[in-house]
Amino acid sequence: MRDLVKGKRIVVTGSSSGIGAETARILTEQGAEVLGVDLTKNFDNVEEFYRADLSDRATIDALVDVLPDGIDGLVNNAGLPPTKPADILLKVNLLGLKHLTYKIVPKLADGASIVNVASLAGHGWPKAVDAIKASETLTWDNLDAFISRWQVSSEGGRSYFFSKEALLVWTMQNRWTWRDRGIRMNAVSPGPVDTPILPDFIETLGERAKEDRDTMDRPGTPQDIAPVIAFLLSDMTQWIRGFNIQADGGMASNLTCKAHGL
Amino acid sequence: MRDLVKGKRIVVTGSSSGIGAETARILTEQGAEVLGVDLTKNFDNVEEFYRADLSDRATIDALVDVLPDGIDGLVNNAGLPPTKPADILLKVNLLGLKHLTYKIVPKLADGASIVNVASLAGHGWPKAVDAIKASETLTWDNLDAFISRWQVSSEGGRSYFFSKEALLVWTMQNRWTWRDRGIRMNAVSPGPVDTPILPDFIETLGERAKEDRDTMDRPGTPQDIAPVIAFLLSDMTQWIRGFNIQADGGMASNLTCKAHGL
Repeated sequence: MRDLVKGKRIVVTGSSSGIGAETARILTEQGAEVLGVDLTKNFDNVEEFYRADLSDRATIDALVDVLPDGIDGLVNNAGLPPTKPADILLKVNLLGLKHLTYKIVPKLADGASIVNVASLAGHGWPKAVDAIKASETLTWDNLDAFISRWQVSSEGGRSYFFSKEALLVWTMQNRWTWRDRGIRMNAVSPGPVDTPILPDFIETLGERAKEDRDTMDRPGTPQDIAPVIAFLLSDMTQWIRGFNIQADGGMASNLTCKAHGL
Repeated sequence: MRDLVKGKRIVVTGSSSGIGAETARILTEQGAEVLGVDLTKNFDNVEEFYRADLSDRATIDALVDVLPDGIDGLVNNAGLPPTKPADILLKVNLLGLKHLTYKIVPKLADGASIVNVASLAGHGWPKAVDAIKASETLTWDNLDAFISRWQVSSEGGRSYFFSKEALLVWTMQNRWTWRDRGIRMNAVSPGPVDTPILPDFIETLGERAKEDRDTMDRPGTPQDIAPVIAFLLSDMTQWIRGFNIQADGGMASNLTCKAHGL
């Protein structure tokens, strides 16, 4: 229990900023071998760095080709904020994430842990079940039609919210997909966190972001979230499967209580 | 991050069997000072042992009087199985648990963590919101009337289910009760676990327990659950508040997917 992730080989996407950078840093500090993936390398927080654009299918294929075998953990952390255009956002946050995961599974060691960084923004997924079901056949080729049919444009940050809602459902759906190999998938949902993309959220969400700020005692920090990801990567969580840990200072709990008049 | 709970003073109720015993054992192993509470002492897994009947208000008061100050963690683990009479079950699992918690808060150190051991049996709490709201005024004195008014007798294990449903709601409601002192409350919900009370569950739940067994690849063990409790006691979880970690091999996720046709 002491050495949570010591000696584990872990891939972290979006390792150059925010939650991904802090996660890579503490995993390295704990003796893990971190393979970082991002557009640019900002820190010496990884053992190996792989430059890759996770919105592009061919790039993802090429990335997985050069990754080593025996990967004990995959942190799907890379994600675009709601200010980005809906098509590129859905490519990175949803299509690319799923594609990378399926491609990487043969290179995962038995007992490996996959951790998806979702968001409090995904909390309302039950209201989007129809669109989420429809997204099961979503590909790079029918993306524009999907955005228009299911109204998941960038307006009001809808594409971002949808990407996180669908990610949470996909996490649950994969609770037992690789159970015979002991590979589990879980998610972590941060609330508002003080990272380089926080201004993008405030720009998109406006009043809602202000309300959140007034409710919370302080904004979250990458230091609040990274240890939760490390925990899910560790052997302490072999019985947690298809589950979403909400690390948001109590914001999700607050929403749930309000919704039920509690 | 390495020494999750080293040097922390932690009270564990129900420390003599099952999940509580394993929790006390690994906390002690990690260098915590464990104060165990139970009816009888079975193991040398604690620093100090306090004999107490947690169904009794006066006994709880007497217990808290002799506990030291500076407590960093409280694990509300003691609980009766569904085969017990409804009144004694609700006293231990709900009334006694709440009473102990409120009494012990003044002896908690700033930044302390309270962990309630709930259950997958509490998963359906949204359907019981009215009874749960009514239970806010439940005391030792109006228990019989409450059981009859809200139909929470032991039939079909209803009193057990209700005790866990109410515990999950109470956990959420207390997300920010002691926020000014940095004291957080969270829950852990195991699914079916191979402990001395597993036969009681099978006796009460019948077909449902069999269905669970067929769905799971194996029953849970105390070794699956105790590390999750240790995690919630550690400083790694200061941003997790009013939250319920479901450590059940994916059973809750399975129920949620089924309920939404996913």
